[in-house]
Amino acid sequence: MIKTAEQYVKDLRDGRVVYQDGKRITDVVAAWPKSVERAASEFFVATIPEHRPLFTMMEDGEECSFAFKMPSTPEDLQRRREILRVSGELGAGGSRLTGIDGLNGVAFGAAKMDRAMGTHYSENMAKYRAWCKKNDPSIVAAVSDPKGDRSLHAEDPRQANKDFYVRIVDRKKDGIVITGCKLHITAAAIATEIMVLPSRNHNETGKDYAVACAVPCNAKGVSFLCSQGSVGGGHPMIIFEEVFVPWERVFMAGEWQFSREIATSFARYHRLTAATYKVGQLNALAGLASLMAKYNGLTKATRIRDMLGWFAMYATVTEALGKAAALSGDVDPETKQARPNPVYTNCAKYWFASQWHEAMKYLQDITGGIAATIPSMADWDNPETRPFLDKYLRGAAEYPTEERIRAIHKVIEEGATFHGVLSIHAEGSLSTQKQVLFQQADWALFEAAAKYSLGYKVDHPEFKNRLGLGNTLWKMPESLLKGKK
Amino acid sequence: MIKTAEQYVKDLRDGRVVYQDGKRITDVVAAWPKSVERAASEFFVATIPEHRPLFTMMEDGEECSFAFKMPSTPEDLQRRREILRVSGELGAGGSRLTGIDGLNGVAFGAAKMDRAMGTHYSENMAKYRAWCKKNDPSIVAAVSDPKGDRSLHAEDPRQANKDFYVRIVDRKKDGIVITGCKLHITAAAIATEIMVLPSRNHNETGKDYAVACAVPCNAKGVSFLCSQGSVGGGHPMIIFEEVFVPWERVFMAGEWQFSREIATSFARYHRLTAATYKVGQLNALAGLASLMAKYNGLTKATRIRDMLGWFAMYATVTEALGKAAALSGDVDPETKQARPNPVYTNCAKYWFASQWHEAMKYLQDITGGIAATIPSMADWDNPETRPFLDKYLRGAAEYPTEERIRAIHKVIEEGATFHGVLSIHAEGSLSTQKQVLFQQADWALFEAAAKYSLGYKVDHPEFKNRLGLGNTLWKMPESLLKGKK
Amino acid sequence: MIKTAEQYVKDLRDGRVVYQDGKRITDVVAAWPKSVERAASEFFVATIPEHRPLFTMMEDGEECSFAFKMPSTPEDLQRRREILRVSGELGAGGSRLTGIDGLNGVAFGAAKMDRAMGTHYSENMAKYRAWCKKNDPSIVAAVSDPKGDRSLHAEDPRQANKDFYVRIVDRKKDGIVITGCKLHITAAAIATEIMVLPSRNHNETGKDYAVACAVPCNAKGVSFLCSQGSVGGGHPMIIFEEVFVPWERVFMAGEWQFSREIATSFARYHRLTAATYKVGQLNALAGLASLMAKYNGLTKATRIRDMLGWFAMYATVTEALGKAAALSGDVDPETKQARPNPVYTNCAKYWFASQWHEAMKYLQDITGGIAATIPSMADWDNPETRPFLDKYLRGAAEYPTEERIRAIHKVIEEGATFHGVLSIHAEGSLSTQKQVLFQQADWALFEAAAKYSLGYKVDHPEFKNRLGLGNTLWKMPESLLKGKK
Amino acid sequence: MIKTAEQYVKDLRDGRVVYQDGKRITDVVAAWPKSVERAASEFFVATIPEHRPLFTMMEDGEECSFAFKMPSTPEDLQRRREILRVSGELGAGGSRLTGIDGLNGVAFGAAKMDRAMGTHYSENMAKYRAWCKKNDPSIVAAVSDPKGDRSLHAEDPRQANKDFYVRIVDRKKDGIVITGCKLHITAAAIATEIMVLPSRNHNETGKDYAVACAVPCNAKGVSFLCSQGSVGGGHPMIIFEEVFVPWERVFMAGEWQFSREIATSFARYHRLTAATYKVGQLNALAGLASLMAKYNGLTKATRIRDMLGWFAMYATVTEALGKAAALSGDVDPETKQARPNPVYTNCAKYWFASQWHEAMKYLQDITGGIAATIPSMADWDNPETRPFLDKYLRGAAEYPTEERIRAIHKVIEEGATFHGVLSIHAEGSLSTQKQVLFQQADWALFEAAAKYSLGYKVDHPEFKNRLGLGNTLWKMPESLLKGKK
Repeated sequence: MIKTAEQYVKDLRDGRVVYQDGKRITDVVAAWPKSVERAASEFFVATIPEHRPLFTMMEDGEECSFAFKMPSTPEDLQRRREILRVSGELGAGGSRLTGIDGLNGVAFGAAKMDRAMGTHYSENMAKYRAWCKKNDPSIVAAVSDPKGDRSLHAEDPRQANKDFYVRIVDRKKDGIVITGCKLHITAAAIATEIMVLPSRNHNETGKDYAVACAVPCNAKGVSFLCSQGSVGGGHPMIIFEEVFVPWERVFMAGEWQFSREIATSFARYHRLTAATYKVGQLNALAGLASLMAKYNGLTKATRIRDMLGWFAMYATVTEALGKAAALSGDVDPETKQARPNPVYTNCAKYWFASQWHEAMKYLQDITGGIAATIPSMADWDNPETRPFLDKYLRGAAEYPTEERIRAIHKVIEEGATFHGVLSIHAEGSLSTQKQVLFQQADWALFEAAAKYSLGYKVDHPEFKNRLGLGNTLWKMPESLLKGKK
Repeated sequence: MIKTAEQYVKDLRDGRVVYQDGKRITDVVAAWPKSVERAASEFFVATIPEHRPLFTMMEDGEECSFAFKMPSTPEDLQRRREILRVSGELGAGGSRLTGIDGLNGVAFGAAKMDRAMGTHYSENMAKYRAWCKKNDPSIVAAVSDPKGDRSLHAEDPRQANKDFYVRIVDRKKDGIVITGCKLHITAAAIATEIMVLPSRNHNETGKDYAVACAVPCNAKGVSFLCSQGSVGGGHPMIIFEEVFVPWERVFMAGEWQFSREIATSFARYHRLTAATYKVGQLNALAGLASLMAKYNGLTKATRIRDMLGWFAMYATVTEALGKAAALSGDVDPETKQARPNPVYTNCAKYWFASQWHEAMKYLQDITGGIAATIPSMADWDNPETRPFLDKYLRGAAEYPTEERIRAIHKVIEEGATFHGVLSIHAEGSLSTQKQVLFQQADWALFEAAAKYSLGYKVDHPEFKNRLGLGNTLWKMPESLLKGKK
Repeated sequence: MIKTAEQYVKDLRDGRVVYQDGKRITDVVAAWPKSVERAASEFFVATIPEHRPLFTMMEDGEECSFAFKMPSTPEDLQRRREILRVSGELGAGGSRLTGIDGLNGVAFGAAKMDRAMGTHYSENMAKYRAWCKKNDPSIVAAVSDPKGDRSLHAEDPRQANKDFYVRIVDRKKDGIVITGCKLHITAAAIATEIMVLPSRNHNETGKDYAVACAVPCNAKGVSFLCSQGSVGGGHPMIIFEEVFVPWERVFMAGEWQFSREIATSFARYHRLTAATYKVGQLNALAGLASLMAKYNGLTKATRIRDMLGWFAMYATVTEALGKAAALSGDVDPETKQARPNPVYTNCAKYWFASQWHEAMKYLQDITGGIAATIPSMADWDNPETRPFLDKYLRGAAEYPTEERIRAIHKVIEEGATFHGVLSIHAEGSLSTQKQVLFQQADWALFEAAAKYSLGYKVDHPEFKNRLGLGNTLWKMPESLLKGKK
Repeated sequence: MIKTAEQYVKDLRDGRVVYQDGKRITDVVAAWPKSVERAASEFFVATIPEHRPLFTMMEDGEECSFAFKMPSTPEDLQRRREILRVSGELGAGGSRLTGIDGLNGVAFGAAKMDRAMGTHYSENMAKYRAWCKKNDPSIVAAVSDPKGDRSLHAEDPRQANKDFYVRIVDRKKDGIVITGCKLHITAAAIATEIMVLPSRNHNETGKDYAVACAVPCNAKGVSFLCSQGSVGGGHPMIIFEEVFVPWERVFMAGEWQFSREIATSFARYHRLTAATYKVGQLNALAGLASLMAKYNGLTKATRIRDMLGWFAMYATVTEALGKAAALSGDVDPETKQARPNPVYTNCAKYWFASQWHEAMKYLQDITGGIAATIPSMADWDNPETRPFLDKYLRGAAEYPTEERIRAIHKVIEEGATFHGVLSIHAEGSLSTQKQVLFQQADWALFEAAAKYSLGYKVDHPEFKNRLGLGNTLWKMPESLLKGKK
């Protein structure tokens, strides 16, 4: 069933506990109408004929969101990319950017765990997925823990407290009780379900930290602390104070051996999501740079063209890698679950993340000092000052001043710390990408190529049937060498 | 005479026309008490025994600000650096960071112009300098013009209007009348004098744009449009609408041949100022990075240490180049005016400007995603939410949470577009630094070294007395080569 | 017909005029047996069952090299990539890496020119292509001109001579006569045909420089000046001294309007070739870095793993972009000729070219100082010194010393200026890639995305049917906002 | 006493054991006359009136090389820089670039060790220094060990052998016996003395690796394995096979606690040496880039000017930091020995090392593809081919072709792996510089600045006497704030 936009909005008034900028927010709809509207649009768009075939599917005679399908082919992964792309361009959504990746990541880890350890979490997951298809919730993944001292394990007694990672504080007959905090949970305050999963590996002594489960946003003991000054709550901290979770919503409870597997399975999906939604942002960024160059009359300068060429590349490479990651995804033979190619996704993520600050430097370079000193839009609205702005902040004569001023304000917004931090930390840090690339790349192929180039025979399938070593595929007959006729 | 802090404050209530965020500001003191206090402190500090010997000098039996001395030795340049450094560390000043450079730059250009063209602007300048010594004004340099279409000259008819560069619209018996706008004028709304000077070369057809003069902040026709949301007005646009300037305050009026000379003379001084005040900022930045690493428990990780080592280098190189630029300054034989070494100042400026965005990437990398998602300080003040923040945003156990939270907010502030744009555009763009380095470097020396290394004799003083070419300073006797005894 | 390897070798003894390292080379086979063998292998490989289906095709009942097929689908482009990849891994070929791109580039330009200007060069081209299919020549493209003073046009009288670009010096009844020089012609001294084409646009006054034609390697007046110390002649200068070319081998003769079209058409194909053969090199480079890290016992160090992750990305992104460029190629509706996506190819080329020197820094960083100071392999062969090398240049105990030593020598070879220059200049300079990206990227899309994000309606097909602007796809009813039931 | 150039040459025929390129070299003078001449010139130059005052000093009525003076003031350090600079420009020397740093580094460590541990090595050192003053030897420092598996300590049983670091294999009544190998010993095969010192810290179990001593080049058991194809032997491996060293030439023998101190003391001096000799190289590099741009007619292109500006900066910053490092050196209160500022030297070293490959990219970009494909100088000498080269490799008309060709060959030479590796590994790796910067920078100052900026009182001497916190140096009276009169 597809939830209506109206129902989504109504469901947000469920008694959830939300704080922002020093105050309790009692009605999130009234607090952030625009954000809620934008999120609700995602449900609306799935109902209109133009987009319905992309956003929904039929299962057992029932229409439901394609988002909840367990991906079983590379094409499924690419279709999810397409859904994200269209949503992004429509300005819709935002409330389940992470949750589907959480669902699929936990599902994969649980299936593997069940096989290895004899647990039965996949059954819970199957029921939960069916519930999702029926109820069409807005769902977020809650992954990042606050960590405290990063050089210490969760359970290290030198940590200032035990709760720097969400943990099981009690196990009851009908469920578990969890305490802790998750950080940076995009759109969590306007979602309905939270998929909690571990952010890293844990040891046997820290097995209580190995926990994955689904929690409703209005569960007792859950509080949201929203990002300062954000619309829609931003990316809240979620506090869990002795929150009870019934067993049927638990997907891991102590199996520390699979904590890392679940964390990385989520990440593998989520980096593809990143490599998807970023394309829209980077396309607009390239366009913004181009417009600013035009407003400023700079499009003939070689150094500006060089930068614009670079912006085109910045967006294009991200798009090419994201698409390659989906279409080169593999299907796990045990679980039949499709997963994106991890090397391409990490290349994509590292590529856009590592260049963001450089992009801002270029954009600010093109824009000029005015991006540090511009008066506010209120001065544009003030009839006393608008003539001054209109006259002096005009750029090339063919463009209206207002357009240039709006673009400058957009440049300021893009350059905020928020976007820089999001680029490098969301979906895993720069350091993580490089380490994952180190772990996942096809070193057997690379080393075989290297050894072959050093003149050694190698056993690699791509090289072992080579007809000869180095340059001697075909051996020149002595007679030819001497030129005898 | 040294103006008292009190007098500085009183002088700001002079009827000046100031706008910010959509409203007219009728009393700048009441609007920005902290900024005014900070600026006034610069006058106060000059009067206290600990700093008086550095900040003031005696001339003709009268004590006056050392700032107004025409620099005549490299040591004068270094003393000015010291004044800026102490002010910065004391948290004082800000209202004449640019003005002194404007004064000295215009003075230099005017002196050269007088000699070349037979004008007499130096006399005006001498009187104005004497007036400054006596009245101790807060003074800013107004340099950057809005430019309109940057690919066109000021007077090009394809420009949307004629006033994209400040220009002389009338010449009267007792003075000139100017119209136009200057951008990014740091602290201009809380200064008392504006030194107007051209931002670039102009052609003969654009000779009305070749104008330098001093204008009081409350002159008729002057309006300030302050930067959005800034304290102290930020770096306002100054609008000049038919502002009358008496001849004795005019230092250039139409001598387009020297427009560029004045612009670059100002820049040469001002880049040294930049290489001075930036050191304090970069020291604090390195410290902030180090503190964040400690709060997060990261100081043992090699990659973090690498970044911290880089931050130390970032600050240190800027300081070393700034000092070298002052102490290697030259004294112009005609004007007896000392000027900083342009290669070192431009190296310093380019160095810190070109690395700023990389610095932010590193700082944000060390800080973590929390710099994108942190709740506001108001949530810290709210007793309902403070316990959550105190518990979960704690880092390594030995540091109080509040310190870490404050540091995170500082990281957010440093990363704003404002600082990025300031780094690359204030005191000249990245492109300008490279072009100036191209123009000013000692290519005769470099090319001589290259040619010498290619085996050619060269005429350069450093190389022409070389005892031989290449490796043949001393010629090995044949007997030695053959090892005969 | 597929030429045999033997025939290829025999054909090289055709009286061609070749110089290297100060001497005339009278028999290129005897001079460079290994290179000739390697080039001949390309013909051999096409004849063996394993590879025949990839390398050859049937046309009119005759088997011929697939290389000579005019590409008419993206799959044709990808098949050519596959041929290059297999050749590269087999260590075969090298003698027609550029020629096929020259053929296809000239064919495209000629077809366009014929339509626009009423010329008939396509007929010559069709006959020449048929001749190629029948005779299976080794063919190279001769593009780069020496240029003289790069700031001046070919015909500028301030140039030191008129022949810095190949030009038509005479037009006869049966053909044209050309004079000039082409630089960097890979494997030209061991090829059989030279496809001459212009390297840039020319003006009407320089119309004699607009010339494209096919010339045999042993034509009268052709001389090869080989790269110093190279095997196989390297990338020779080819001197044309009044070389006669019959009309049927001429594809452009004065149509300066299409000089640029032919140059860029060639480049478009050739950058895809680059993005193909580079993958093999970069795979081996990544493997070499990994092996060196293992030999040195460094694989546990984070900073080394970071570099290795980077190497994996370096190779992978090149591969992904190359593949995307072929499969996203477009088919020109007029000529039916398929051409690679120019944005992807230029991204690929710029990506690997701009990072090469950084790659060398990383590789040398991992390898250590020994890459500057290692004794020669002759010392390894000397029984007096081998024990010293074997003992002291051993790395981690599990690897034989000889393997490490060979790898170090490979590191030295990779780092040579040759490879650096090849990376950045072959197939177009760094500057060119950025300019092409500037020209070819989809700015309409980018700017539409930007304007849409500024809140403006846009006319672009991807955005014009958006259901609303910004966040208002679905409009929240007032009742919902107020929470009424 | 100053040794004559003749005597230096004669001393090289002392029976030393030298191998290169697979052969034993029995007479190094005959093998490398140019290198020996160049090295000998250093002795010659000290005797000519123009340079004598710089190169020599009087002690106890005897003239000796200033090189052997224990540096006791920053000016001594700067004078040594001056000697290196003049030698470099004269094309003299090379045979004791490292040895003096070894001498001073070991002297410092020995003096510290004697105080801490009651040893008496300083007496040996004093005698050795006196011997040096009298005998004026050419001396090199032998520091780098082969290391084997870098992840293991010297004595780890998993190492393939015990001798990857030079070690004491026997202690006799009259001296010690050492075995092992030192790598990369610049000019060692044409020196006379070797100062052996440890390259890193060692543990108590590895105390036999803690050894510093002086060994003559012709000592029994010493062999030199020269760098492949190098003139002067390059930077040989030195093999020590049970080499006996008498006690009076031993400066450390087992005091593992001071192994690191000696290694880092050497490095501190040696990085200043690097920051000195590199300036000459970088000046010539900047000149080479400028000349190439001129030959190619590129000096008007903005992107080329940008690169040239960068080259000027590259050289200039190195020079400024080197000078600052010497003049900011400190004098150790215990030993009275002056040492360079470690932060500045490491900044200098990291700066030039980390940018070298980028510099090569720029240089090759300016030069063009010809640097990969140029014929050899032998073709220039061949009258058949010279006319072709002269005509077609001419650049801008005002420069002779030969000059351009020579410059291109120089570009090729500069870009060799050798120079890249030397840049990043000589005098310590990139990683080391960053770690040293992390360890040596003034974090107390930086963190004080940061905390002060966060609004905290700090105890640091530079900040604790601040008149107030943040902006409240001077407190604005209430009356002023309200504007009362």
